[in-house]
Amino acid sequence: MLSFTPNAALQALLDEHLPQLAASEGLSLECVAQAIAQGTMVLLGNPAHPGLRPLLVGQPTRVKVNANLGASPMAFSHDSEMTKLDVALQAGADTVMDLSTGGDLTPIRTEMLARCPVPLGTVPLYGVVQRRLDAKADMHDWTADDLVEEIRLQAEQGVDFMTLHMGVTRRGADLAQAKDARVLGIVSRGGSITAAWMRKHGMENPLLERMDEVLDICARHNVVISLGDGLRPGAGVDAGDAAQWEEVIVLGEVAKLARARGVQVMIEGPGHVPLHQVGAQIQGIKRLCQGAPLYVLGPLVVDCSPGYDHIAAAIGGALAVQHGADFLCYVTPAEHLTLPEVEDVRQGVMASRIAAQAGEVALGRPHALARNLEISKARARLDWEGMAANALDPAMVCRRGPGAKEKACAMCGDFCAVRLNEQLFK
Amino acid sequence: MLSFTPNAALQALLDEHLPQLAASEGLSLECVAQAIAQGTMVLLGNPAHPGLRPLLVGQPTRVKVNANLGASPMAFSHDSEMTKLDVALQAGADTVMDLSTGGDLTPIRTEMLARCPVPLGTVPLYGVVQRRLDAKADMHDWTADDLVEEIRLQAEQGVDFMTLHMGVTRRGADLAQAKDARVLGIVSRGGSITAAWMRKHGMENPLLERMDEVLDICARHNVVISLGDGLRPGAGVDAGDAAQWEEVIVLGEVAKLARARGVQVMIEGPGHVPLHQVGAQIQGIKRLCQGAPLYVLGPLVVDCSPGYDHIAAAIGGALAVQHGADFLCYVTPAEHLTLPEVEDVRQGVMASRIAAQAGEVALGRPHALARNLEISKARARLDWEGMAANALDPAMVCRRGPGAKEKACAMCGDFCAVRLNEQLFK
Repeated sequence: MLSFTPNAALQALLDEHLPQLAASEGLSLECVAQAIAQGTMVLLGNPAHPGLRPLLVGQPTRVKVNANLGASPMAFSHDSEMTKLDVALQAGADTVMDLSTGGDLTPIRTEMLARCPVPLGTVPLYGVVQRRLDAKADMHDWTADDLVEEIRLQAEQGVDFMTLHMGVTRRGADLAQAKDARVLGIVSRGGSITAAWMRKHGMENPLLERMDEVLDICARHNVVISLGDGLRPGAGVDAGDAAQWEEVIVLGEVAKLARARGVQVMIEGPGHVPLHQVGAQIQGIKRLCQGAPLYVLGPLVVDCSPGYDHIAAAIGGALAVQHGADFLCYVTPAEHLTLPEVEDVRQGVMASRIAAQAGEVALGRPHALARNLEISKARARLDWEGMAANALDPAMVCRRGPGAKEKACAMCGDFCAVRLNEQLFK
Repeated sequence: MLSFTPNAALQALLDEHLPQLAASEGLSLECVAQAIAQGTMVLLGNPAHPGLRPLLVGQPTRVKVNANLGASPMAFSHDSEMTKLDVALQAGADTVMDLSTGGDLTPIRTEMLARCPVPLGTVPLYGVVQRRLDAKADMHDWTADDLVEEIRLQAEQGVDFMTLHMGVTRRGADLAQAKDARVLGIVSRGGSITAAWMRKHGMENPLLERMDEVLDICARHNVVISLGDGLRPGAGVDAGDAAQWEEVIVLGEVAKLARARGVQVMIEGPGHVPLHQVGAQIQGIKRLCQGAPLYVLGPLVVDCSPGYDHIAAAIGGALAVQHGADFLCYVTPAEHLTLPEVEDVRQGVMASRIAAQAGEVALGRPHALARNLEISKARARLDWEGMAANALDPAMVCRRGPGAKEKACAMCGDFCAVRLNEQLFK
């Protein structure tokens, strides 16, 4: 394990917040400090983000859930994105990512940062490409300088974590795009843009070539690098292939280099992965990346559920958490179809929170066991307020349940088993 | 293994339908015939059910999905139940259960049978108790004769499978209801009614005492007995306790007796089970019940997701299928809150179908692998019609997707990775 000396911004955050952060996770100071030093835990928090509550991600903290927001060029509404942000936070998202690729990105990001007390993540490459498209230029006609400057701008704005596709090498892209290699080639937007750029310009990944500058910027603002999985499988049948593992190997190497410069990293994970491969994938990625916090998208355990992909992702997410994933990126019912609407955002966050709870129960985490126990006790009392208080979505219980004065619900009525139990022992 | 001589009604069904049934499952005649003889597969089909398509359930057939329908005394609408039936069938339910406990049950059942080309299941005990409630009598004031006659009536009507709670013994109920034994006692309606009846009348389970008559009726009409899990855990913390396994042991014994009389059986399974216990539960139940087809409700891997319990159940269902479950009873978003509405029915069926698909992919079942592969190939072509054709819910793709003429969807627009792949290789 390489030695890790926290960047100054991180050290200042730790000095100020560590006791309260550790307490909120039910962990000792020593446990948190040691995990951060080892890189198995990161502290998200850019000092320039106004009103931010810093957040710990990684074992053995509570599993976190991210909601992706952001307009696309084809569907842009400032107000609806702000509504989605509010709904994501109400539903319990621990972080949000602004993945906007439409509208005026820089001022929207400033507004989101101001409105968002939780860590905000971005994919800086989108801003670079969007500027080309806005200028009616070739979308691949950007330079490494443009990308480094975008990272610097966003870091100064207060972005807390950034997806940087530093594992997409020419070798990896060739493996993914070789004839007969994959059914679905590259499905990550950032991955495919990077691959196309490298091919067009005959150059290696610009982030690898400019790594020193990128790491300096991230160290200065304590931006956590979320090492993007640009070659993640987009079909179950592509999961675990050479391209995927080639990228993971590179990510593990980049993670070491970043940490040697005092920069914290997370690793992004798949993608589409069949049920029986989820555990092995999670364990393999963790192993190759020195146990760095793993941030997974899904994984989706089936390919054929468009319109219901939050469910396919919750199945994979639950297993991923059981096997060591730390951070779940939500998937909404709109995935593979269209930009999510407000209700999709709520469903996506709830599905990921269910997955996290399921996995954490399997891991025996006290807060997860306690929640399950308390709602079950409330059920035994037919105590609807107690059920709502311990439900992942209390408002849902109030809206669809029978109300605090009723005993049984409309599902069972006089046939309520719990009421029968109760009567029997009166 | 006891020898099994199919009842005459079953033999007639096999003689007529076996080649087509085997072909539709992609199995050989011998494989199906042997599995039915061993009791690891059952053929649902009561000759009195008009227009029925008989259905195979059990390894290694395609995993089936059941939708529970039926009004409660507190929410009864004939038309809405018929709409739910239509929606359940459209969404792909392989069977339905009419669990009505309100309205005029017998004629509704006749209408459902006529309208329903898939096997229909019931819980006869509900009809018996409902009659007492309609007469303003004590709900526990029914006799074993009443229950046997209800089973006979429904068998003659054409009901294809019946949940009979034959594993709820006085010993099991005492174990479940002992002080400090469980957080949530008995949560099955049929289980709690049976337990209360035994306690009130000081008698053993009436179905065990009248087993010969019940088996005669079921043999005459080829009613498949779905041996109800009246003592299933209703909270994760109760899963795997003595009461649950006591019932499973009894169900295994009853299954042997039924098969010795030519009656087919399925076993009903939990319930609320933490993620890490699902595999062991499924394997244990299968072992104790001689591999009889296992019909699971969920299992729900968390207790705290009212309003989203179809997701908690899909997580458990996927793992259950991976470990050998044969038949998934859907759970809707309304579970634990209220009677499902039409949209809940659709969501519930789809969630179970996703779970089945995920589990079957893990098992390497060819039809499941093919569906995943074909939709992924359609994605690689940006072929929205092909995606719809292979989606679990084609109508959803048509409704929310971009339409066949568009290439990219509104989620990614110009950033579409698949389109970038395509352009690169033109």
